[in-house]
Amino acid sequence: MGAEIREECGVFGIYAPGYDVARLTYWGLFALQHRGQESAGIAVGDGKDIKLHKGMGLVAEVFSEEKLNELKGFVASGHVRYSTTGASVPINAQPLVFHYKLGKIALGHNGNLANVLELKKNLLSRGAIFQTTTDSEVILNVIAQYAQTDLVEGILKAMVDLKGAYSLVIMTENQLIGVRDPWGFRPLVLGRFKNGYVLASESAALDTIGAEFIRDVEPGEIIVIDEKGLKNYKFLQGMRHSFCIFEFIYFARPDSIINGYHVNTVRRKMGQVLAKEYPVKADLVVPVPDSGTAAARGYAEASGIPLEEGLMKNRYAGRTFIRPSQREREIGVKLKLNPIREVLKGKKIVVIDDSIVRGTTSKQIIELLRDAGAKEIHLLLSSPPFIRSCYYGIDISREDELIAAKYTLEEIKNYIGADGLYYLSLEGLLGIFKEREFCLACFTGDYPVPIN
Amino acid sequence: MGAEIREECGVFGIYAPGYDVARLTYWGLFALQHRGQESAGIAVGDGKDIKLHKGMGLVAEVFSEEKLNELKGFVASGHVRYSTTGASVPINAQPLVFHYKLGKIALGHNGNLANVLELKKNLLSRGAIFQTTTDSEVILNVIAQYAQTDLVEGILKAMVDLKGAYSLVIMTENQLIGVRDPWGFRPLVLGRFKNGYVLASESAALDTIGAEFIRDVEPGEIIVIDEKGLKNYKFLQGMRHSFCIFEFIYFARPDSIINGYHVNTVRRKMGQVLAKEYPVKADLVVPVPDSGTAAARGYAEASGIPLEEGLMKNRYAGRTFIRPSQREREIGVKLKLNPIREVLKGKKIVVIDDSIVRGTTSKQIIELLRDAGAKEIHLLLSSPPFIRSCYYGIDISREDELIAAKYTLEEIKNYIGADGLYYLSLEGLLGIFKEREFCLACFTGDYPVPIN
Amino acid sequence: MGAEIREECGVFGIYAPGYDVARLTYWGLFALQHRGQESAGIAVGDGKDIKLHKGMGLVAEVFSEEKLNELKGFVASGHVRYSTTGASVPINAQPLVFHYKLGKIALGHNGNLANVLELKKNLLSRGAIFQTTTDSEVILNVIAQYAQTDLVEGILKAMVDLKGAYSLVIMTENQLIGVRDPWGFRPLVLGRFKNGYVLASESAALDTIGAEFIRDVEPGEIIVIDEKGLKNYKFLQGMRHSFCIFEFIYFARPDSIINGYHVNTVRRKMGQVLAKEYPVKADLVVPVPDSGTAAARGYAEASGIPLEEGLMKNRYAGRTFIRPSQREREIGVKLKLNPIREVLKGKKIVVIDDSIVRGTTSKQIIELLRDAGAKEIHLLLSSPPFIRSCYYGIDISREDELIAAKYTLEEIKNYIGADGLYYLSLEGLLGIFKEREFCLACFTGDYPVPIN
Amino acid sequence: MGAEIREECGVFGIYAPGYDVARLTYWGLFALQHRGQESAGIAVGDGKDIKLHKGMGLVAEVFSEEKLNELKGFVASGHVRYSTTGASVPINAQPLVFHYKLGKIALGHNGNLANVLELKKNLLSRGAIFQTTTDSEVILNVIAQYAQTDLVEGILKAMVDLKGAYSLVIMTENQLIGVRDPWGFRPLVLGRFKNGYVLASESAALDTIGAEFIRDVEPGEIIVIDEKGLKNYKFLQGMRHSFCIFEFIYFARPDSIINGYHVNTVRRKMGQVLAKEYPVKADLVVPVPDSGTAAARGYAEASGIPLEEGLMKNRYAGRTFIRPSQREREIGVKLKLNPIREVLKGKKIVVIDDSIVRGTTSKQIIELLRDAGAKEIHLLLSSPPFIRSCYYGIDISREDELIAAKYTLEEIKNYIGADGLYYLSLEGLLGIFKEREFCLACFTGDYPVPIN
Repeated sequence: MGAEIREECGVFGIYAPGYDVARLTYWGLFALQHRGQESAGIAVGDGKDIKLHKGMGLVAEVFSEEKLNELKGFVASGHVRYSTTGASVPINAQPLVFHYKLGKIALGHNGNLANVLELKKNLLSRGAIFQTTTDSEVILNVIAQYAQTDLVEGILKAMVDLKGAYSLVIMTENQLIGVRDPWGFRPLVLGRFKNGYVLASESAALDTIGAEFIRDVEPGEIIVIDEKGLKNYKFLQGMRHSFCIFEFIYFARPDSIINGYHVNTVRRKMGQVLAKEYPVKADLVVPVPDSGTAAARGYAEASGIPLEEGLMKNRYAGRTFIRPSQREREIGVKLKLNPIREVLKGKKIVVIDDSIVRGTTSKQIIELLRDAGAKEIHLLLSSPPFIRSCYYGIDISREDELIAAKYTLEEIKNYIGADGLYYLSLEGLLGIFKEREFCLACFTGDYPVPIN
Repeated sequence: MGAEIREECGVFGIYAPGYDVARLTYWGLFALQHRGQESAGIAVGDGKDIKLHKGMGLVAEVFSEEKLNELKGFVASGHVRYSTTGASVPINAQPLVFHYKLGKIALGHNGNLANVLELKKNLLSRGAIFQTTTDSEVILNVIAQYAQTDLVEGILKAMVDLKGAYSLVIMTENQLIGVRDPWGFRPLVLGRFKNGYVLASESAALDTIGAEFIRDVEPGEIIVIDEKGLKNYKFLQGMRHSFCIFEFIYFARPDSIINGYHVNTVRRKMGQVLAKEYPVKADLVVPVPDSGTAAARGYAEASGIPLEEGLMKNRYAGRTFIRPSQREREIGVKLKLNPIREVLKGKKIVVIDDSIVRGTTSKQIIELLRDAGAKEIHLLLSSPPFIRSCYYGIDISREDELIAAKYTLEEIKNYIGADGLYYLSLEGLLGIFKEREFCLACFTGDYPVPIN
Repeated sequence: MGAEIREECGVFGIYAPGYDVARLTYWGLFALQHRGQESAGIAVGDGKDIKLHKGMGLVAEVFSEEKLNELKGFVASGHVRYSTTGASVPINAQPLVFHYKLGKIALGHNGNLANVLELKKNLLSRGAIFQTTTDSEVILNVIAQYAQTDLVEGILKAMVDLKGAYSLVIMTENQLIGVRDPWGFRPLVLGRFKNGYVLASESAALDTIGAEFIRDVEPGEIIVIDEKGLKNYKFLQGMRHSFCIFEFIYFARPDSIINGYHVNTVRRKMGQVLAKEYPVKADLVVPVPDSGTAAARGYAEASGIPLEEGLMKNRYAGRTFIRPSQREREIGVKLKLNPIREVLKGKKIVVIDDSIVRGTTSKQIIELLRDAGAKEIHLLLSSPPFIRSCYYGIDISREDELIAAKYTLEEIKNYIGADGLYYLSLEGLLGIFKEREFCLACFTGDYPVPIN
Repeated sequence: MGAEIREECGVFGIYAPGYDVARLTYWGLFALQHRGQESAGIAVGDGKDIKLHKGMGLVAEVFSEEKLNELKGFVASGHVRYSTTGASVPINAQPLVFHYKLGKIALGHNGNLANVLELKKNLLSRGAIFQTTTDSEVILNVIAQYAQTDLVEGILKAMVDLKGAYSLVIMTENQLIGVRDPWGFRPLVLGRFKNGYVLASESAALDTIGAEFIRDVEPGEIIVIDEKGLKNYKFLQGMRHSFCIFEFIYFARPDSIINGYHVNTVRRKMGQVLAKEYPVKADLVVPVPDSGTAAARGYAEASGIPLEEGLMKNRYAGRTFIRPSQREREIGVKLKLNPIREVLKGKKIVVIDDSIVRGTTSKQIIELLRDAGAKEIHLLLSSPPFIRSCYYGIDISREDELIAAKYTLEEIKNYIGADGLYYLSLEGLLGIFKEREFCLACFTGDYPVPIN
């Protein structure tokens, strides 16, 4: 289930002279907290310099009223991080702020490069030195190498080199720049706030600060926002669009709009398609909160089977993925989910979750439900089986840990102890969308950008 | 007086397989603490990686038993810093540790580059990015640019570019390298410790750990120490040697040997020469502790006037220069020095100090002595008047703050309230040494390396 | 008149395994000879190496049967040159062939960079060395700097830097690549030949070798032809299209199709528009051959005034512009044009030419006609007045030599000695085309790309 | 014998305002013609620009009175070349003249780099492009890469990279610079001419123009000559000196002084040592002209056996090595040498030559002598056997062609048909010199600089 998948990063940027951009960024990051809980940072530009504060922990832990008050300016960028590359140490927190040829630059990055080793090797051969182990420091170096007379031209050239997933929020002392890779792996949206503009990983962050959603930043697009307004560059057009399907299945907030779709609506449809593909006879539909909630509603609607919250979530437990070790994860599930015996006792139930990764979490959930008296338990997943790793910004697991990569459906069913186990079909999943512009590598092994 | 002069940095390095190199470096830095109290750091190499711990504060504050125990390896380098370039912030603490083409590298630097702006401009034009504002990050980048196949060759080439003062202790995962600039501005000595070698800013640091003093590293020399032993390279020979005269006048510990001279002996001779140049009739010779102590002894010896400690130092006050603001400095003097009324009352005294910078400290000392009953006060300085700033690693003051740059001897005497004021002559000073290989820019304005 | 305007360059490339590509290139260059008579060169790739032959002079002078026979391969590129940048010396002849990171590369270039000084400065700062004084060597260096792992990616990045006019035919040992700048200043067309493809400055070169015209290469497009067929990249879309209007007025062969228009048709329409704008009463329409021929036909058609060849061209004189000095140019006109007294005597004539540059040629032509008995001479030009220099590949003249930049219509008329002088209006000219995508800088001073 | 060894290059440079430096260079090159007959070139600087003329052939063929008259200036450099690297084509002729960051630069090079492949790879990775296949273009690129603010500093840094043999004469518009590699492989001498200075491969070139020999340029030394006079830099001291022993055995002119020794004297002593080592009983000592002449004289002196010129040289044949193919070489010997039957008939003779390479030439000479009536023929060589190739600037032969690398003394003797065959011992050879600072790799395989 999604709980075993570590989200990556969230980026946010705002250009709004006259407004408290640091505070607005704080709330924007707050809305993106689900995308990374390891570190948080905000950089602010005042036209002359960039000020930065960042640290390990949740947004609310890293920033105090006092810290925010020190960050004065009219353009800000922020970042929440879950480490997919680079160690979990303070030096790797973002935004990264460096001095380069044309001034100062701050970078927040969501995604993973596929050719980072090659890029780093080239940079080292040019005399570059590195303090962190992140893709992001590599990206900054590539941009700095090219941005000798004009930052946007430097970014254009860097984009020829950067292969893989990158949604960037770049900031100078007086500019805000959004960049989305030509494949469009990770989301990035553009909004309007008063006299200015906002960039964010998800539209929910716009809602939080009262900004108006304009549109997705397009794959291969550069958005430049400064005192002259907004200018956009389309570049490297014609790459195969490869939106991350897992943003819809699990990652993104249900109240976000991504690549033109409401996430919640998509998830509900997944449940409806599941109901068509697998019309299980049951007394109840039980969602695994929160990852299976929307799909369960869709299943209930389409099947006519009543939806009941048979698993209650401990709202204070946080998402399990902030606990790194396997052992802690196992304990975590019990701390986090509480089965409602009165609801479940003696019932045939359809349990809806988003996915199975290692299988250990699903096994525990089935046990919880069985112990709580459920008579027959059918687990339905709103995604096809995960059989391959992700190299574009999501830390799913090593391939040899993916249960579906090694075992048959029957074997998995037996392992987790379910009476039935059903995955949404790939065709069923894709049928929900108008266009087939997704990266499906985790299901199919068809990687849009080669890994080096 | 020296108390107004901020010392710069101390460097230390040790290669000693089988010994606790981190702890030895700790003691070495402890012995060099007078060269910098702002931050301290130790990096240790174990043949595979470099571990680093550094922080703001005194050596004893930055390191705990636990921290030292984590730093396992057979080669170590350490640094204490007083910021002459770059802000006083944690990120600027040294050693700097970076990943470069050939592995990891740690750098500790004592000195100041004269052409850092030009170097930085060039590096930025090559795509370099900077996180700190120190000369040292520039030096690391210059070396990394050139060290594409061999570190020593990279250093050789970097030395062609680096103009100014630099005594470097460089460390890789398994090598210790000492570099002294071709002019020899700042000291660097080499010692033997058991099966290995030590590098340090001053020989006193060797004594502290029981290492044997071998010799000064020569101007333009590179010393490479690794499992194959010690190898040295002489390079860029023939530059005008420019040892910092102020190491002898004030900075270095009296128990150090620098450029072939015992510091204490030199200082005593300064007092003797002062006595010849200015045979003042007085009852007592009173040193300003500790900067005037050795010279006062020399003056007493040569003049026959008895030496008395008329000013007692509060041993817990620390050197005054750890207090940055002018106002704090004024208060600092009173906190630090205590006049002994019984000694001073009704006496004609010769007060010996090393130098006058702004004059405010001297003025306060004269007041203290006058208030304590001294009848006649003659201030003798063991250096000629400071009239120019230093660009080679010492933060004397801005030129317009130097009292001797703006006022006559008579005016200064009146300002500080002394009955007599006498500076050691430049010829008298130089007569102490066999050779005239010193940078005298602060006295003469003759800068050996042009400033850009 | 056009005769005073020096054409720039012609490029040609062919990929056709199994065919004598050197010979086909020879004929292609022959067809493009009007674009440059100073030097000619052909490079041939055989999959392993590039062979090159080039020299000063016309295509037929530079190549012999024997030389062509030595140039074996399946891909070829050729170039004819009139120097707009760089001295007229053998070393500047093209294609330039160099060894770069990924192998060998040949470059043929038509156009002029606007930022060549800046680019060259940057390259010199990176350690580049130059043997020629051409823009083309700069372009090759920029590409080589970026083409470290992939040539097309290197070209993409180079295009971000290159500002100005460049239609390039690039060749490796086994690839043919066509590049047209994002503004589309200079023409470049694509054709099919048997199993392969052809690139050329003008479609007339395709006709000559029996290749089929496919289309113009688009501004900002890269065409890559190799054993895998043809692949195109669209890049830096959205620049302001700036086709050179003078290709239509004078440069291009009348039988070429450029930017979608038949050149001959366009010129005829110019004459028709002239007839509407200036319905001069006359006995005869007399073209200045060859530059005024098509427009004269259009004028005659629209006005009903009969066309007569009152000036005969000496077919052996060549274009006048192969004579560089002003003095030689004056003599040149008389050598080149012969007035037909029987036609002209006592007639009121409309003389049609393409343009006036310095005015000296027009003055001589009027004198010739007057001496031959013409009673009234009206000179009509199929272009607006030239008032500014070209920096995008055409050597019109220095601005202070342009007669229309300094004198009124009346003054010019008096200087050249005509009874009437009429320029085609800019609106009339543009009305001929569907879209207004032209560089009109020579008429208006509105330069699409800033000059550095 | 030496005839089979191709000499490499000769360099010459002169700084002499007020004199016809081009003509003086012409005569200097004339004196160095024995070091290279393939191409010749002269570059002249006049303070503003560099003019160049070069071509294939002998000095007297490449330059005419008219060409020399065009080369006006006050500083000149010249080069004669025999290709050891790079093809024998006009583009490879030297001096190479390029535009670099600080102006124009001309380079003449004698020697071979051992790490040229690695250097070229690095340069290509930095975006360098190459037009020639010579080491010299690589050297120029390395210098240009480093010479961003100061040429001498650039050369200093380049010298860290350049491994192998290089004696360079570098010229700018107004400077003459001599550089000799730190090992001192190839010779380079300094002389005084009127108000200026001269650099040349051999002192004989100084004599020719009436310049006074000052001294050898030292290994690792840079000599800079300009309007401020002569300045020298000693750099990278302490490398193992490795003078080419073959300059003494064969290459250098007998009237030259190299590394402090008169070449003629050295060769005579070789003969004397040979006489001690091999006191052959014979009627006559016969030199192979010219390579054995001096040693034969030494042998005769020491042995008391009369010297007779039994082989006459055809003075018009030129050195044989201008004929590249094996077959031409065989014919060449007969064309070149003529045995004097009256001298040789019935005599026991000692024939003295410098060396044996492939053995074919020696075999022919023995046949010539035998056919001319010599009764007993002992061949004595003034060098030890060649068993290894040279990678430092001399094109001896591929190792598998060296007869001494494959056969025993007895086998060689039989092959060439001599009655006796004796090589000078290595110890005997070295005993002639005061110090043992020679590269002996061709005899011992001990290469001072590793080949990459």
